[in-house]
Amino acid sequence: MPLPPINFCSQCGSTVEQKIPQGEDRLRAVCPNCQTIHYQNPKIVAGCIPEWEGQVLMCRRAIEPRLGLWTFPAGFMEMGESSEEAAARETQEEALADVQITSLYAVYSLRRVDQVYIIYRGELRKREFGVGEESLEVQLVSLDDIPWKQLAFPVIHEALTRYVHDREQKSFGVHFGSIAPMTQMPAYESPAQ
Amino acid sequence: MPLPPINFCSQCGSTVEQKIPQGEDRLRAVCPNCQTIHYQNPKIVAGCIPEWEGQVLMCRRAIEPRLGLWTFPAGFMEMGESSEEAAARETQEEALADVQITSLYAVYSLRRVDQVYIIYRGELRKREFGVGEESLEVQLVSLDDIPWKQLAFPVIHEALTRYVHDREQKSFGVHFGSIAPMTQMPAYESPAQ
Repeated sequence: MPLPPINFCSQCGSTVEQKIPQGEDRLRAVCPNCQTIHYQNPKIVAGCIPEWEGQVLMCRRAIEPRLGLWTFPAGFMEMGESSEEAAARETQEEALADVQITSLYAVYSLRRVDQVYIIYRGELRKREFGVGEESLEVQLVSLDDIPWKQLAFPVIHEALTRYVHDREQKSFGVHFGSIAPMTQMPAYESPAQ
Repeated sequence: MPLPPINFCSQCGSTVEQKIPQGEDRLRAVCPNCQTIHYQNPKIVAGCIPEWEGQVLMCRRAIEPRLGLWTFPAGFMEMGESSEEAAARETQEEALADVQITSLYAVYSLRRVDQVYIIYRGELRKREFGVGEESLEVQLVSLDDIPWKQLAFPVIHEALTRYVHDREQKSFGVHFGSIAPMTQMPAYESPAQ
């Protein structure tokens, strides 16, 4: 979801103006009272592909959007953490699993929703996992059994496609690029169908 | 600089409350009037190491912080662009140079300032550059001539250290990790000294 527009100054409560600040080249919400410039920037989604003996840990989403569809653990990075810590925290929250982050795997930009996914590979420290609050189901999945038609987002599809390819080649790259919005992707099966 | 606290709702102007929203685990600024939850998240700094015949393009900063010190082009990613586009745009703005982004080079988290640097390598399309508004000076620099004691930030020091090492090894990795704050780094020379 795009961020909502800024109407009021979060510092002093005044109504903001849309103007181009001196030395800049684009419209910003600027407070005419306290002069605060309210920047809006893309957000980071930190993700982890958790690995255990050739399988990967996947979660079926218990929350919107894309409730009922499959993903690897991923979520918004919080203040005060590194992106590796965020990826490991999301794995703990969504799959109750303890991972050691082992490598950077991909950086993907989603321009239409102003998100950047930073995806790591992680190794489960032991074969223990469970169903976190935001998940309906959590499973270790062999690469042959990835539910391709029930993946939650195009970025998950892209990362796992690369991952399977890299595993077949026995050589892991670090991938980057832009991901097209869902409307430009092949239709995904709804879990209700 | 850490983000300032949120006092007022940017949607409706009401005074916000600090509370833990249902289903979450940490304090957020929440509007008691329109129920908006105001998330604050780390910001992305997109950077580029622009290359030309073994040299790299560096800029001396004309703005605070660290005015007068050297960096490669880098700046906050804007809404509606990819991180590669942001890195190329910063190179255009700060060094008036046109780069083709060729590879992802590093992802570094700076926890104390809630920034994540996403750094690419880029190739100058031609040997043309100039002094952008935020720069005092822009130069193509041989790796032997990198001004190590006058670099603007620890993250720039770390990335260029790796870069020189990788070039010596003739093998470029993709690097990631956390960067310690400036106070834990060796003292940097001030340009005035």
